[in-house]
Amino acid sequence: MKDLNFIEGGVCSPKGFRCAAVGCGIKNPKVKRLDLALVYSKYPTVAAALFTQNAVRAACVDFSANNLEKAEPRAIIVNSGNANACTGPAGMRDVRKTAKLLAKELGILQREIQVCSTGIIGMELPMDRIEPNIPKLVKALNQESCDVAQAIMTSDTRPKEVAVEFEIGGKTVRIGACAKGAGMINPNMATMLCFVTTDANVSKAEIVAATKQAVEQSFNRITVDGDTSTNDAVIVMANRRAENKEISRRGEGSAEFRAALQEVMIRLAKKMVSDGERVTKLVDIRVRGAKTNKDAQLVARAVANSNLCKCSWNGEDPNWGRIIHAVGYAGAQVCEGAVDIYFDGLIAAKNGMTAKKTPLEKLIDVVKNDKFSIGIDLNLGAGEFNIWTADLSPEYVDFNRAEYAASKMKG
Amino acid sequence: MKDLNFIEGGVCSPKGFRCAAVGCGIKNPKVKRLDLALVYSKYPTVAAALFTQNAVRAACVDFSANNLEKAEPRAIIVNSGNANACTGPAGMRDVRKTAKLLAKELGILQREIQVCSTGIIGMELPMDRIEPNIPKLVKALNQESCDVAQAIMTSDTRPKEVAVEFEIGGKTVRIGACAKGAGMINPNMATMLCFVTTDANVSKAEIVAATKQAVEQSFNRITVDGDTSTNDAVIVMANRRAENKEISRRGEGSAEFRAALQEVMIRLAKKMVSDGERVTKLVDIRVRGAKTNKDAQLVARAVANSNLCKCSWNGEDPNWGRIIHAVGYAGAQVCEGAVDIYFDGLIAAKNGMTAKKTPLEKLIDVVKNDKFSIGIDLNLGAGEFNIWTADLSPEYVDFNRAEYAASKMKG
Repeated sequence: MKDLNFIEGGVCSPKGFRCAAVGCGIKNPKVKRLDLALVYSKYPTVAAALFTQNAVRAACVDFSANNLEKAEPRAIIVNSGNANACTGPAGMRDVRKTAKLLAKELGILQREIQVCSTGIIGMELPMDRIEPNIPKLVKALNQESCDVAQAIMTSDTRPKEVAVEFEIGGKTVRIGACAKGAGMINPNMATMLCFVTTDANVSKAEIVAATKQAVEQSFNRITVDGDTSTNDAVIVMANRRAENKEISRRGEGSAEFRAALQEVMIRLAKKMVSDGERVTKLVDIRVRGAKTNKDAQLVARAVANSNLCKCSWNGEDPNWGRIIHAVGYAGAQVCEGAVDIYFDGLIAAKNGMTAKKTPLEKLIDVVKNDKFSIGIDLNLGAGEFNIWTADLSPEYVDFNRAEYAASKMKG
Repeated sequence: MKDLNFIEGGVCSPKGFRCAAVGCGIKNPKVKRLDLALVYSKYPTVAAALFTQNAVRAACVDFSANNLEKAEPRAIIVNSGNANACTGPAGMRDVRKTAKLLAKELGILQREIQVCSTGIIGMELPMDRIEPNIPKLVKALNQESCDVAQAIMTSDTRPKEVAVEFEIGGKTVRIGACAKGAGMINPNMATMLCFVTTDANVSKAEIVAATKQAVEQSFNRITVDGDTSTNDAVIVMANRRAENKEISRRGEGSAEFRAALQEVMIRLAKKMVSDGERVTKLVDIRVRGAKTNKDAQLVARAVANSNLCKCSWNGEDPNWGRIIHAVGYAGAQVCEGAVDIYFDGLIAAKNGMTAKKTPLEKLIDVVKNDKFSIGIDLNLGAGEFNIWTADLSPEYVDFNRAEYAASKMKG
């Protein structure tokens, strides 16, 4: 994108934002990795958020969604290591206690607080370890953001953050963001958290619409293992400190703002897939020629979530047979004899059969790369959809074999 | 089931059926494992069949479905090692050539032949190896069935066959069957073949209805990896040689016949899941208390196909958090605070929270078993569904990493 300048930093890069992270030993009192973080705006904001569509959702999600209907947030507090999901009334009690303490320390209202959690399901939060750390967290507020990206990691192997700078009407505007998510990544924002801050001067209507659109083009187009979670949240806060003229919905500056917000989220989305649990490949599934966009989406998701396809990518095997069989069961209108399949633009199957003009060695070279695209042309219409997915490795399974009993034993 | 006598044998156990199997080296000319088989009825039959619902289906499936509309089958010819799918006009040419040769050798009509294939997608059948073996196959026809069960195996580790004997109106009736299927097992009969023979004297209407009902209760309730295939077929042939009075649709003897047919298919379905690729656990997901049966099915399938749940079973981890999160995203009406989860009848979660009365050690003991059930009670209504599934192992992924390029190189 032109004139979009990627800069060092994250959620503290826009004017007027501060953050902090501390280690409470939430998962294990003996291990003091960073696991509690705070993002704070010194100024009032307008904000938008999207939460998990899972029917089972954590208390903090209910609390935050409800708060956002009543007030614009000034702060996000987040812990990793424990999802505080499936914890019944105790779950909501602990969320309220956290917000109450934090509101007092920051001198803001409880309704101005968003609370997020990520980690294991079904265990109560260790409030005895969290409570004494809330004042420490507020005292630690500063302008370095990397610690938040670090503190929200669970099975992530690296912190994920992005910051950009661009101009609107001659004024400099910044957007900063961090995200986590490695397992259970699926469309509709599964087990992922993303916090975005901006100093753009935008209207409430514009930030809501821009957020929805950006999520649709980014986090709703990634999948790692097809599972979705109880705790997902994307929260975007704008404190309007940049000196641009207010951007109204689809008004002047909206195109630039939306393009930048979308690019930030797409970058984070791709980082999430690449950092998926024991993932070795980022695969861009591009479906075109479907009867409808919905059909294209069905086909893209079927291929992206097929274990057999994912195993073949892990094995660097350009197995288009597994791809076409997933195309076939996707539930979309498909004419087998019209299907073309490409690996990075090289044709592997033409009219539903081996495309003899591409030597197998060339296809193998493609799937040896860390990133490649799979093009699927149904040749039936103008419907299109793309999704980013990953391979499935023996190490993924091994990594996910045991967790619950082990944690219980430790906890 | 009372008075259902399981006997040694398979598709040749009922009167008047013969079979044979030979090795053609279909996958690899140097390895002469059994890979071409024939099931033959000396007498006319009435038959029913169900084929894959994948939009991409092999030429043999089209051919067999079409034949069944025109005539009752006398013979099934099947090869393993090559699915003859996505092979374009050559695929149908080879199916016709096979049927023509076989019809001549057996002295029957081409339309009386069902042709099945299972194996790798996207490669033409090696007809030069198959053709000379068809006369040999016919010469080898005999009454031992085990070889067919063996010859249709692909990644299966053991042959799967069942035979039962029971009485209808004082007359002895037999049903015999064999099946294959290990990877890509999913409802709607993914990559599975099942051939059933019976000497029962049944009407066409009854065999069609009984087959549909039995498949619904068996093969449509199993899943290994959520993928579905291009080549599935269940074919049931009755040659009416038993001396029972003809069973009309839902008429006298229908209840006994259907119960026996269903039990045969359920046994084979469970064998398939247990023999799923690198599977170590057979898990019976039993959902009840859903608002509707459809909701119960959505929940059962979401849990049965969740990679994270499947990994936890492989790790012998009684992680009910992963189960409830799959319940949540299934798309069914769910009230988190009403969900109860059981492992072999022991309560693990009550009202969406840890059920403290069951010690974790007891739950761990359950998931250490080769077979266990997971009960999910949504406590919202009377909807029910059950499905058999399996764990997901690192070895499954490793096994499925590379196939296509390797075969191409070999072939």
